[in-house]
Amino acid sequence: MLYFIGLGLGDAEDITLKGLKIVKNASRVYLEAYTSILGVGKDALEELYGREVILADRDLVEQESEEIMEGALSEDIAFLVVGDPFGATTHTDLLLRAKERGIDVKVIHNASIMNAIGCCGLQLYNFGETVSIVFWTDSWQPESFYDKIAKNRQNDMHTLCLLDIKVKEQSIENLMKGRKIYEPPRYMTVNQAAEQLMQVVQRKREQKLPLDMDESTVCVGVARVGSDDQAIKAGTLEEMTAVDLGGPLHSMVIAAKTLHPLEIDMLECFANDPSVLKEKPT
Amino acid sequence: MLYFIGLGLGDAEDITLKGLKIVKNASRVYLEAYTSILGVGKDALEELYGREVILADRDLVEQESEEIMEGALSEDIAFLVVGDPFGATTHTDLLLRAKERGIDVKVIHNASIMNAIGCCGLQLYNFGETVSIVFWTDSWQPESFYDKIAKNRQNDMHTLCLLDIKVKEQSIENLMKGRKIYEPPRYMTVNQAAEQLMQVVQRKREQKLPLDMDESTVCVGVARVGSDDQAIKAGTLEEMTAVDLGGPLHSMVIAAKTLHPLEIDMLECFANDPSVLKEKPT
Repeated sequence: MLYFIGLGLGDAEDITLKGLKIVKNASRVYLEAYTSILGVGKDALEELYGREVILADRDLVEQESEEIMEGALSEDIAFLVVGDPFGATTHTDLLLRAKERGIDVKVIHNASIMNAIGCCGLQLYNFGETVSIVFWTDSWQPESFYDKIAKNRQNDMHTLCLLDIKVKEQSIENLMKGRKIYEPPRYMTVNQAAEQLMQVVQRKREQKLPLDMDESTVCVGVARVGSDDQAIKAGTLEEMTAVDLGGPLHSMVIAAKTLHPLEIDMLECFANDPSVLKEKPT
Repeated sequence: MLYFIGLGLGDAEDITLKGLKIVKNASRVYLEAYTSILGVGKDALEELYGREVILADRDLVEQESEEIMEGALSEDIAFLVVGDPFGATTHTDLLLRAKERGIDVKVIHNASIMNAIGCCGLQLYNFGETVSIVFWTDSWQPESFYDKIAKNRQNDMHTLCLLDIKVKEQSIENLMKGRKIYEPPRYMTVNQAAEQLMQVVQRKREQKLPLDMDESTVCVGVARVGSDDQAIKAGTLEEMTAVDLGGPLHSMVIAAKTLHPLEIDMLECFANDPSVLKEKPT
């Protein structure tokens, strides 16, 4: 059996009793370590589980998945994922490959940012498509995330923005020379995401295109959701460029045009200036 | 401190280690028992926790919340919610009332149907607004859920449909006579939801209105997600009227017009007739 086990969002103790029982009895335990991170490292997990945990990077999961699945027809293998196992397509792919080989698969669910974001006070029902905001480079500055946010705003829906993570990336020089030297991990902050979004808004304005959001649009920045030191700040997009949320992981929500009174009451708990929450129509 | 603790979706062992620790040490433990259910009863929770659990019905949470919050300024009170605490507005309301009274609040997240539905193979990113489908009566047959599904389909998004739960409801006669006699609980099945949706489609057709979905639209019916006997079936809306998913809770997804190849691969694992998954444009 191949178990996909969600670890939740905060630290080692966010695993479920069911998940822990499986981890303790599995032949091997892998930790997927490139689509998200917990607030604690592999050593904290190993201490709690009382056993070795093998880090699974993108290469191992995507190209050498046979290694992960080895023996799973007769033994139990645990594959740990931060959040819930079905946040990312990568895990769907691994699950399908296991099924093709006749391996039984079981999923132990847990909280992920996709549902825990409800803690910011915006109703989960009213979220539209989720978007990913990637790090811009000098030569590559995609704006498609803006179009999705704009569409959600037209439909009066909130947008959860997942912010880029660069783990075990090689510089172009090292990649070309085939050197397995990796850059330090980078996690996009709410400030950086807001800056990029402000730039897109500014470009649209210069092109005299209609705007579905602007610098005064209500946003919520969140950091380390589910951990003891989680941070939530509500305010305008412009405020988000300067807000201090501390270390990773960050996510950002762009609110719908219309907020429910209960949503406003909740956001007020997290706003420096609650008056900005009553947005003027753009 | 007032703790909101998500229990996840399956049975008693879906609580997190963090959640269990708080439950064991709290002064009182309430179980919210009217917006969802676990696959096990209160007694199974009490056995695992080694302590008493107080059932909190709608009246207690909405009208007598002072009772729940009593002592929470100096003691720890645990309020257990099936799934994640922020699925329902009810809990936002309780949280705000606690904050007003100066009570510290902390949330222990867990899986809910809002993220665990990813197990059906449809990508969470591509879900639009979530809808609730309520039990129709002879005189009250609202169709607003159809309009939301139609809008999601126009935007090429999936729709998660949460199906009605009637717990501790009084008959009109008992309500009028002020008798606290309650009807047996009712949980809407995927068959009933699909039947209602088929009727709306038929009415729109008779009124010659444009249709954004019809009997051949791809749907996924799920039951008891996260439990050992969870069931998932993929097929057309018409197939959903006859599919046998067993006991509660059921939910249903109406797929987007366009499916990603990986989504089709996953749905094929759950379809009687995989050929229906390649939908013709409506």
